[in-house]
Amino acid sequence: MATAKRAVITLTTDFGLKDGYAGIMQGVIYRINPCASIVDLSHQVPPQGIRAAAYVLRRAYPYFPPGTVHAVVVDPGVGTERRAIAVQSTNAFFVAPDNGALTYVLQDLSHRRDKPRIINLTNSAYWLPSLSRVFHGRDIFAPVAAHLSLGVDITALGEEIHDVVMLPPLHLEISEARVSGQVAHIDRFGNLLTNIDQSALASLGDTVAVSIAERRIDGLSKTFAEGQARQLIAYIDSSNHLAIAVVAGSAQELLNAHVGDLVEVAAFDDSAL
Amino acid sequence: MATAKRAVITLTTDFGLKDGYAGIMQGVIYRINPCASIVDLSHQVPPQGIRAAAYVLRRAYPYFPPGTVHAVVVDPGVGTERRAIAVQSTNAFFVAPDNGALTYVLQDLSHRRDKPRIINLTNSAYWLPSLSRVFHGRDIFAPVAAHLSLGVDITALGEEIHDVVMLPPLHLEISEARVSGQVAHIDRFGNLLTNIDQSALASLGDTVAVSIAERRIDGLSKTFAEGQARQLIAYIDSSNHLAIAVVAGSAQELLNAHVGDLVEVAAFDDSAL
Amino acid sequence: MATAKRAVITLTTDFGLKDGYAGIMQGVIYRINPCASIVDLSHQVPPQGIRAAAYVLRRAYPYFPPGTVHAVVVDPGVGTERRAIAVQSTNAFFVAPDNGALTYVLQDLSHRRDKPRIINLTNSAYWLPSLSRVFHGRDIFAPVAAHLSLGVDITALGEEIHDVVMLPPLHLEISEARVSGQVAHIDRFGNLLTNIDQSALASLGDTVAVSIAERRIDGLSKTFAEGQARQLIAYIDSSNHLAIAVVAGSAQELLNAHVGDLVEVAAFDDSAL
Repeated sequence: MATAKRAVITLTTDFGLKDGYAGIMQGVIYRINPCASIVDLSHQVPPQGIRAAAYVLRRAYPYFPPGTVHAVVVDPGVGTERRAIAVQSTNAFFVAPDNGALTYVLQDLSHRRDKPRIINLTNSAYWLPSLSRVFHGRDIFAPVAAHLSLGVDITALGEEIHDVVMLPPLHLEISEARVSGQVAHIDRFGNLLTNIDQSALASLGDTVAVSIAERRIDGLSKTFAEGQARQLIAYIDSSNHLAIAVVAGSAQELLNAHVGDLVEVAAFDDSAL
Repeated sequence: MATAKRAVITLTTDFGLKDGYAGIMQGVIYRINPCASIVDLSHQVPPQGIRAAAYVLRRAYPYFPPGTVHAVVVDPGVGTERRAIAVQSTNAFFVAPDNGALTYVLQDLSHRRDKPRIINLTNSAYWLPSLSRVFHGRDIFAPVAAHLSLGVDITALGEEIHDVVMLPPLHLEISEARVSGQVAHIDRFGNLLTNIDQSALASLGDTVAVSIAERRIDGLSKTFAEGQARQLIAYIDSSNHLAIAVVAGSAQELLNAHVGDLVEVAAFDDSAL
Repeated sequence: MATAKRAVITLTTDFGLKDGYAGIMQGVIYRINPCASIVDLSHQVPPQGIRAAAYVLRRAYPYFPPGTVHAVVVDPGVGTERRAIAVQSTNAFFVAPDNGALTYVLQDLSHRRDKPRIINLTNSAYWLPSLSRVFHGRDIFAPVAAHLSLGVDITALGEEIHDVVMLPPLHLEISEARVSGQVAHIDRFGNLLTNIDQSALASLGDTVAVSIAERRIDGLSKTFAEGQARQLIAYIDSSNHLAIAVVAGSAQELLNAHVGDLVEVAAFDDSAL
């Protein structure tokens, strides 16, 4: 077994940045693999924000080098019977509590017909020697991620399982005349990112009308600069999903929007103007 | 002397993340040791928050690889006669202004009977050539940390000293029937972390009652999930100290708590129910 | 062409830290240059805060190793005809949208008589294969920075240009009796950092009076600790410019100050007392 190997490990947690919790995970990783390159994907997931963590990881993971290990620690069930899992896909590894944090990644792998191997982490030989009840990020997930980055075979970490906890799916309904979905995430800019894939809009024709919170947006903008300052626009985001923004402002604030808000798209009907 | 050596350097500052101050320290480090692995332990220590920095470092440092260099820069006395110090323990190095930032680390080393060597940083050969009066993180602490990571002998950095500034101790009183201490830190989740070590509770029997801010909590929870949402619980944190939390909420908010608040633990007396 | 080379890449963006956008850039970089050392200079630039990004980068870049690549992504014009540029100076590389984000760096290079080479990034061979309209940090700036860190000749990235967009200059007026300038940046501590270089104050004599917001500060403090707590002081900051602070407090809050506020310095006249 290697004792040092160049590999990327990403961390996605709700630990925030002030208390050193994420840094402790990095210390644990470097003790096991001094050649790891650690990426702080996000430590600003809202406390207990499993869905937000799942979203952030899903958007990011395809852009990392093959063999990257992604660790998610949003873990309100820490210390209970909830399982800890590791997942191996064709190109990446994932380590997380079995609470839905990998929902969107697993859905995406399924769309790509990538059948991952899933392991229930039970082999404490790959954990820290002393296990707390409240910080498995330090005691289990960081050391397991580090060992995976060294090339440890995932089957050594526990026994294979075939079911994992998934988050309830977001609403998504696609018909020829209308597509409805939900706000899946709100980003730092106050942009509302939906679960409506660009491909779902194809049948609606060249011009669409987007409705949210009793507001209607006619047509999709190609760039932010195309709109006037403070204008509400709809656009296709960098993951090819419908999104809603305010130019040089915040759609979240303007619409008092929340994750889960309903978004509807219809063919543009100028007779309604 | 080596010109590059793989080693971890951690940074704990009150610089925040928006102005690039912490990044400048990293640039200085990489110029001296291009093979450093730099960990941002925290840059969100409250401005001038020496005690918070001391706490964060104490919790984190045992989890880093042998030879790690920990730099703390919370430095309201920058540019005055306050000394800058470096400390070498059996497993680690520490660099900080001599203002109490290493208090908890030095106490812990003392408990472990690890007698560190302490150096007053006076040898400007290991600093940046030009010294500002207001940013010794850049001009002294970053370059000194980088040189230590290369293997420079700590005695080259200045003369040995035997006294350092320590923060006033927190209140802690342990009797057979009652233990009283203080909130030592409040973390991102609003959890109240005390200075009461689990071992101090042994004499109180199997079940204890924890009092804070005219609230009483009966018994210790083993996990967050054990409680009801919004329930106030007491538990043993990941550093084996008593802590107080609100399940899926913030004890800080519920109790309007502050660092220094008094916490009392007594044997559980159900006759009072 | 190298496929891995130790080199520092800094990132300065307005992406914030919660959504993983900056982490995605890091993934893209590591795929191209697994030996990069990535420094998060700031991801907390205010949304669309081109001037703040320009300021942060200008303060930081001289402290990085030769050959460092600095990428700035504050990009309200993403997807429009605005150009993307790369700059090579004697010691560093810069990659940014052509929107003024390099203004202060280019001015500084000009002061040092360092004539940089500027390239209009048009060669999509160095971009990600699929280009979004809204995230060129991921699709253009990260891969271009990574290729530069590998030693790709900058002229391969596009055609040389000789004009770039510059921000409107801040007000600065220097006479023998009076110097007036502006608040150029406000940092995490609420310190007001001006565009008035220390050298401009030489003709005003040993003692100066600093005026801002109808307040007058007599003399420059050498250290923060020299003042009383809550005292308004003026001092020379770590980049040798005039700055205004409140000891153990925030000048921004005390004065309700903003970037752009006028600051005047005159010879100290005690007859006015």
